[in-house]
Amino acid sequence: VPTIPDTHRDLLDNPNVVSFATVGAGGQPQVTAIWAVLEGPAGSEVVRTSLFTGRQKYRNLLAHPRATLLAIDPKNPYRTLEVRGTVELTDDPDLAFLQRLLGHYGTDLDHFKAPTDGRVVVTLTPTRVVGNG
Amino acid sequence: VPTIPDTHRDLLDNPNVVSFATVGAGGQPQVTAIWAVLEGPAGSEVVRTSLFTGRQKYRNLLAHPRATLLAIDPKNPYRTLEVRGTVELTDDPDLAFLQRLLGHYGTDLDHFKAPTDGRVVVTLTPTRVVGNG
Repeated sequence: VPTIPDTHRDLLDNPNVVSFATVGAGGQPQVTAIWAVLEGPAGSEVVRTSLFTGRQKYRNLLAHPRATLLAIDPKNPYRTLEVRGTVELTDDPDLAFLQRLLGHYGTDLDHFKAPTDGRVVVTLTPTRVVGNG
Repeated sequence: VPTIPDTHRDLLDNPNVVSFATVGAGGQPQVTAIWAVLEGPAGSEVVRTSLFTGRQKYRNLLAHPRATLLAIDPKNPYRTLEVRGTVELTDDPDLAFLQRLLGHYGTDLDHFKAPTDGRVVVTLTPTRVVGNG
């Protein structure tokens, strides 16, 4: 598993909004803005996000479990971190992961406005990592 | 052709760095940070960027001419504009387009550090446009 370089890991350690690309019907990319967090042991970290199963992204990932994330430094848009990888979708019993994710962004379930029913954990295991700038 | 909504066109009218997704070998999305500009008559505008033919993105687009752009408002990351579309690659004689693009970002060929040989114009014709926030 490629590792997240120390030079660019702040782009995921900080609570930034990042771009997340999946591939839909006919091979058309879809890109949305998401929250994401690094998890797992140092040296073999994965990126995780939470997804409502009503979204097109979810259907895209079921059909085609590959995704790519791009984090752009809000202070310097020429500094970026791209993480390409394969995706695993898992349940989120008791919303334990969603609560960790919200905590990373300084909020919690009481203040979360999106649906909390039918949520899954998206685990992106890196196959290629590119830091620029 | 779907139009760019007036509520979100500032995200492309302003010289923002945006995310641009293509699809590579094996269906893996690639996402990079690019400069882009809206061109064409009102109501049927296209998004254009300039690409060095040495890039993987170029090979991706030759093989699979679809791409998607996501612009995130630098002042409010919950305000976004996604443009999905089909791509046409054309020559850029005398670098006329590249110079327009650089001008939009407040610079010019004399200050441009990337390769100027082997550049093509990428024209993204929208098939779907989504403004959020």
